[in-house]
Amino acid sequence: MATADLFQKIVAHTAADQDGGHIRVYIDSNASIPDRTAAILSGGEDPVPAMADSLGKLEACGADCIIMPCNTAHYFLPRLEPLTKLPFLSMIRVAAQACRERFPGRTAAILATTGTLAAGLYQGALTAEGVSFLEPDEGERTALMEIIYQGVKASAPPERYRAPFLSVIERLTGRGAECFLLACTELPLAVRELGVDLPAVDPTEELAKAAVRFCGYGLRGG
Amino acid sequence: MATADLFQKIVAHTAADQDGGHIRVYIDSNASIPDRTAAILSGGEDPVPAMADSLGKLEACGADCIIMPCNTAHYFLPRLEPLTKLPFLSMIRVAAQACRERFPGRTAAILATTGTLAAGLYQGALTAEGVSFLEPDEGERTALMEIIYQGVKASAPPERYRAPFLSVIERLTGRGAECFLLACTELPLAVRELGVDLPAVDPTEELAKAAVRFCGYGLRGG
Repeated sequence: MATADLFQKIVAHTAADQDGGHIRVYIDSNASIPDRTAAILSGGEDPVPAMADSLGKLEACGADCIIMPCNTAHYFLPRLEPLTKLPFLSMIRVAAQACRERFPGRTAAILATTGTLAAGLYQGALTAEGVSFLEPDEGERTALMEIIYQGVKASAPPERYRAPFLSVIERLTGRGAECFLLACTELPLAVRELGVDLPAVDPTEELAKAAVRFCGYGLRGG
Repeated sequence: MATADLFQKIVAHTAADQDGGHIRVYIDSNASIPDRTAAILSGGEDPVPAMADSLGKLEACGADCIIMPCNTAHYFLPRLEPLTKLPFLSMIRVAAQACRERFPGRTAAILATTGTLAAGLYQGALTAEGVSFLEPDEGERTALMEIIYQGVKASAPPERYRAPFLSVIERLTGRGAECFLLACTELPLAVRELGVDLPAVDPTEELAKAAVRFCGYGLRGG
């Protein structure tokens, strides 16, 4: 569903007034790629061979750049980049830039899987952009993993994860968070399902806009 | 956006309780395929070479069946089928079957582009299913083309096409329509944007469900 969300955001952000004004998009939606967090943290199956297979297919189709709608997968970017001549647009980098540009001087809370957090992906990118940040504590991480895996990925009714999600937001706000980085692709879906209004950066949306710009198309409304 | 809609509906209709339970989906979203209605009605550029290019790419990826989220494109099915060994699932056939099953004995109005109507795609399929139907008259066809091309495809605000859409529905209902076949992939998007509640068959949704069944996956809720 995160891949469908990215695709829909690419179309929505392209300043096209007819069919022909849209970017050609190739997608390999392979939900059987081994879980990225499990591979990083607990010796789960290596996802790189399955990702390399997708990469080869998209390259053969004629893609000009590669985008991955999975934050945790960016941990494997250093191993994927040598496997293709195509440039990757990093959702981590564009999301960290968006934090700096849209919420200057504010402290961002990183809402992510334990894999993304343990890999330090956003901590490094936000530091590079000069954005101060907070990480969820142990209890908040557990709550986020449950929201992501037993909630959104399992297509559970949003009401089942409303209370835990709002509790994580409240606790982080209490510790000084002023904006929220929805740093797992399931979280923008959760926020939309819940109808919650947050000062937030959606890395999927930032990646969609970066792809539109990279391909030389105009952005709708800007 | 119609392709994103089909993709999202495939994911939503798959009875998966985790990532790995989803179908692998390859997409070539090529909005530069020449306009199908123009090719059928007014000697516009032949879309088959561009469609054949997509077909070759999806076949090379390893797809097991082909689905096309464009009703009008099905006019070209007899020329496309010999170009691949893969079976096509026809959205026209599955939508006509859904009319019969969901609205037995009722008269269906075909809401479609002038290309789809002129090609007789749904008239033939509904006749084969024993479903009685109505076609839009000249004025209604013109209104539908404006809703589709200057409305949905141009990402116009829904309020701009609310009145013409409701007028088409009202006129067809007055002539005896009891259910509506949303036989252009932009129309389910229009209905959703407008928040209109209609006794309707959405061919995109029926195609998504047919793909889930063909691939041997369970349907959510059934």
